[in-house]
Amino acid sequence: MKPSIPKGTRDFTPSEVYLRDFVKEKIKSNFELFGFEPIETPSFEKLEVIAGKYGDDGDQLIFKILSNGEKLSKADLDSFNDQNYSKFANSISEKALRYDLTVPFSRYVVQHQNELTFPFKRYQVQTVWRADRPQYGRFQEFLQCDADIIGSNSIWQEIELCLLYDKIIKDLGLKGVTLRINNRKILYGFTKLLGFENRFNDFTIILDKLDKIKIEGVTKELIKQNFSKDKIEIIKEFMLMKGTNKFKLKKIRKIFNDYKISLEGLNEQDFIIDNIDNSGGLESVDLKFDLSLARGLSYYTGTIFELTLPRIPDLGSIGGGGRYDNLTANFGKKSLSGVGISFGFERILMVLQKFKLFPKDINNHVHVLIANFGSNTTLICNSILKKLRDKGVKSEFYPDDSKLRKQLSYANSKKIEYVVLLGEEEFENGEFVLKDMSKGTQDNYKISELESVILSKFKKIN
Amino acid sequence: MKPSIPKGTRDFTPSEVYLRDFVKEKIKSNFELFGFEPIETPSFEKLEVIAGKYGDDGDQLIFKILSNGEKLSKADLDSFNDQNYSKFANSISEKALRYDLTVPFSRYVVQHQNELTFPFKRYQVQTVWRADRPQYGRFQEFLQCDADIIGSNSIWQEIELCLLYDKIIKDLGLKGVTLRINNRKILYGFTKLLGFENRFNDFTIILDKLDKIKIEGVTKELIKQNFSKDKIEIIKEFMLMKGTNKFKLKKIRKIFNDYKISLEGLNEQDFIIDNIDNSGGLESVDLKFDLSLARGLSYYTGTIFELTLPRIPDLGSIGGGGRYDNLTANFGKKSLSGVGISFGFERILMVLQKFKLFPKDINNHVHVLIANFGSNTTLICNSILKKLRDKGVKSEFYPDDSKLRKQLSYANSKKIEYVVLLGEEEFENGEFVLKDMSKGTQDNYKISELESVILSKFKKIN
Repeated sequence: MKPSIPKGTRDFTPSEVYLRDFVKEKIKSNFELFGFEPIETPSFEKLEVIAGKYGDDGDQLIFKILSNGEKLSKADLDSFNDQNYSKFANSISEKALRYDLTVPFSRYVVQHQNELTFPFKRYQVQTVWRADRPQYGRFQEFLQCDADIIGSNSIWQEIELCLLYDKIIKDLGLKGVTLRINNRKILYGFTKLLGFENRFNDFTIILDKLDKIKIEGVTKELIKQNFSKDKIEIIKEFMLMKGTNKFKLKKIRKIFNDYKISLEGLNEQDFIIDNIDNSGGLESVDLKFDLSLARGLSYYTGTIFELTLPRIPDLGSIGGGGRYDNLTANFGKKSLSGVGISFGFERILMVLQKFKLFPKDINNHVHVLIANFGSNTTLICNSILKKLRDKGVKSEFYPDDSKLRKQLSYANSKKIEYVVLLGEEEFENGEFVLKDMSKGTQDNYKISELESVILSKFKKIN
Repeated sequence: MKPSIPKGTRDFTPSEVYLRDFVKEKIKSNFELFGFEPIETPSFEKLEVIAGKYGDDGDQLIFKILSNGEKLSKADLDSFNDQNYSKFANSISEKALRYDLTVPFSRYVVQHQNELTFPFKRYQVQTVWRADRPQYGRFQEFLQCDADIIGSNSIWQEIELCLLYDKIIKDLGLKGVTLRINNRKILYGFTKLLGFENRFNDFTIILDKLDKIKIEGVTKELIKQNFSKDKIEIIKEFMLMKGTNKFKLKKIRKIFNDYKISLEGLNEQDFIIDNIDNSGGLESVDLKFDLSLARGLSYYTGTIFELTLPRIPDLGSIGGGGRYDNLTANFGKKSLSGVGISFGFERILMVLQKFKLFPKDINNHVHVLIANFGSNTTLICNSILKKLRDKGVKSEFYPDDSKLRKQLSYANSKKIEYVVLLGEEEFENGEFVLKDMSKGTQDNYKISELESVILSKFKKIN
C-alpha cells in the first residue's frame, strides 16, 4: 500500500514551492518596505495561552499535543467516563499548535514588553493549524501573513495598511480587487440609533454573513432573532446604500451625529479616505466604504478592513483586519491599541494560479546541465561547473555517462534551460555544443569562450 | 503573571529572525546553485509513518497529536491501567509532528515516485520537533536543512556534496572546518577482517561515541561488550592512524584487499579524494579520510560524512550525512540508492554569533524614518514616503507629531539609518534636513533633491 499524508495537509513539489515562495517574498518584502520587522513564535504554545480565545467552535479545532510518558498517568478518567472529552484531553495535554498568529503575537507583546519600542511594527509569516473538516481550498495546515502595529492610536496606521494592501496587490499583478472598509464605532452608533446597542455582537455576527447568505438571509436571521421588522427595514436601507464614499459618509453623518462614538468613527473614516484621496488614491485596489462590513471577530473596536475579489464571489475574502484595543488584556496588559491586517495566502495563491499571473520562468530554476560523456572529459566538465557556479549560474553535472537521450530528458523534465555537450570529439577540437532546451537549437563555441557565452545568456545573474 | 512559552521553544525577535534568515538564505541559495530543488512536507504525518523509525529512544521523543472530539472515546483504558502509556497514547493519536526530514522525504519519494524524474535532487529546509529534555543548544523545535539525491549510484554525487559543504562554509565565512569522510563498506571489511562482522552495528554504535568518550571510553565499552582484547588493540591502532588521506587509504588497501566489499568502499573513497584533489581541492574545508568515523544511524551503507569545527570540541558535529540504499524500503520501494547531507543549522548559527561573522548592517533593516511635524506637512511627507518606497527604500512615517526626541529615539532603537526632518519652517524654505543616525550628523538639502540624495545613500538598492 502506498504511504499517504493526513487529510487536509499537503506535500509541496518543487514547482509548488517556487509559486509559494514567490508570493511569500512579495508579501514579506513589502511588509519590510513599510517598516515592519519579522518575528517568529513557536509552533506550539502552552495550552492555557491558546485555549478559550476562539470561542467554543474555535476551541474544538485546536490541535492539542499529547503529553509524553509518565505525564499520561494523570489522565482524568472521571471526565472520560462522563464523556467530557474536552476535559479529558486537557488532563493529558499541556501544549497546542498555533491556531492563528494574533493570539501568539499578543502573548509575545506582553511577555517582551520591556524589550520592545512602541509603536511596535511586526510582521509574521508562519504556518497555523486547525482541525477543520478538509474541503476545497480549506486545509488543516496553512500559511498566515500578518502585519500589525501595536501601541499607537494614530489613524495614519490605518492609512499605511491601506497603502500596504494596495502595493502588494499591485506587485502581484492582481486586478479587480476591492478593499472594503468600515468602522465598528459607526456600526455601534447605528445600533444605538435603532435602540439595540445591547445586541451589538449578535447584530455584527449576523451582518458578517451578508456575503454568504445575501440580504435575504440576513433579514431572515434578524427576524428569527427577534429584531423588529421596522428596524430591519432601516437596516436594509443603510446596508444597501449606494454612492461614492464621500456621499455615504455625509449621509450617515447627518443622522448619527448625536452619538459621540459614531462621530469618532465617522471622523476616523473621513480622515482615512481624505488623506488617501489627497495623496492621489490607491493604484490597484478599489477602496470602498461599506457600512455592511462587520467582521465576525468581536475583538475589533475601530476601523475594519476586508479585501475581496468581487468577480469571484464564492472565493470569500482574501484578506482582512482592523483595529483592536484590548487584545493584550488577555495576558494582563491593558490599553495597548493595535491595528493589523492579514493576507489570505492560500486563496491569493489559488487566484494567481487561476489567472496565470506568475512569471513565465518561475520554474526554470536550474540554468545549465553539463552532460556526462565519460571519464575522459569529466575533469574539464567539473572545472567548468565550478566556474559557472562561482558566477552564480545554477548548474549541475549529470552523474552518469548514460545515453544522451536520457540526459536530455532529465534536463527537460527539470526545465533546465541549457545543456553543455562536451564529449571527447568536441574536446579534441577545443569546442563545446550549447543546446537551448526551450528553442531546441544548438550552437558550437570554443571552450575558452564557455563562461562568457553562458553568462551572456543570464545577464540578470549577480 | 507574565505569559510564557513551553520549555525548549523560542520566540525570535526581529534581530534574531534576520540572523536566521541570513544563514537560511546562504544554505538555500547554494542548494539551488548545485541544482537541488525545494520540496515541503506537512508538519505532521500519520503516526504509522513516523513511529518505529528512530529506535526505542527516538520513539519516546516523538510529539503525538491528540485526536479530536469523539475519537477520544477509543482510548485504550486497559493499556492505561497496565501503565503501558505508549500503547495508550497510540489509541488516542493518529498523527505526529515531524521528527526529522529523512523519513518524510522517503515517504514523499515513494508516494510521488511516478511524478518524479530520477535522479531526484531535493532540498528541504523545515522545522522538526523532538520532545528532548531542553538544555544549552538543544531545543524541542529547531530547523533542519537537508539536501539529498535519490535514484543514482554515481559517486559523483558524493563529490558534489563535498563541494556543496565547502561552498556554504566558504560563503558563511567560517574557518577551521573539517569534513570527515569514511565509508561504511570499509568499516564492514574491517569487522570482517577481525571476524566480528555479525556485530557490525554494535561496533559502529560504540565507535560513533569516539568524539565524546575518547578512545579510552570506546575501549572500555568494547571490553564491556565482550570484544576480545587483541582485537581491541588492532581497532585502536587503525582508529588512531595518522597521515595524509592517500597514505591511510594505501595502508588499509594492503590489508583489506581480500574483501570485495571493503575493496568497493576503498575504490569509492579513492574516487572521491582523487577527483577533488585533481580539481584543485576544497577551498574552505579540510577534507579528512577518517576510519574512526562511524555515524550512529544504521541506515547508512556507503560513504559517510561529518562536518566538525575541531577548535570547539564540545560543539559536536555541525553537519553530517551519507549514502543509504534502503531508506525507501520502509514504504515498500526497494533498491533506490540515495545520498544526502544535513546542516546543523542551530549550531552553525551559534558559532557565527560567537565569532561575530555576520555582516555589520544585518540589523539595519529600515532605511529612512520621516519625522512627523503635524498636519501642515503630512501630505508632502506622505508623497515623499511613496516616492522612496517606489524606489525600494524601506521607509516609514512616524505616526504622531510627538516630541522630536521621542521620534529620534524610536529611529535609534529600530536602527533606522536616516531621519528626514521636514517641519513647517523647512517646508517654507523648500528644504529638508537629513540626519545620519549612525554618525549623528545632519545636512540641509532642497526638497526637490530629496529622492536623489537618499537614493545616493543606498546605491545597492535595486
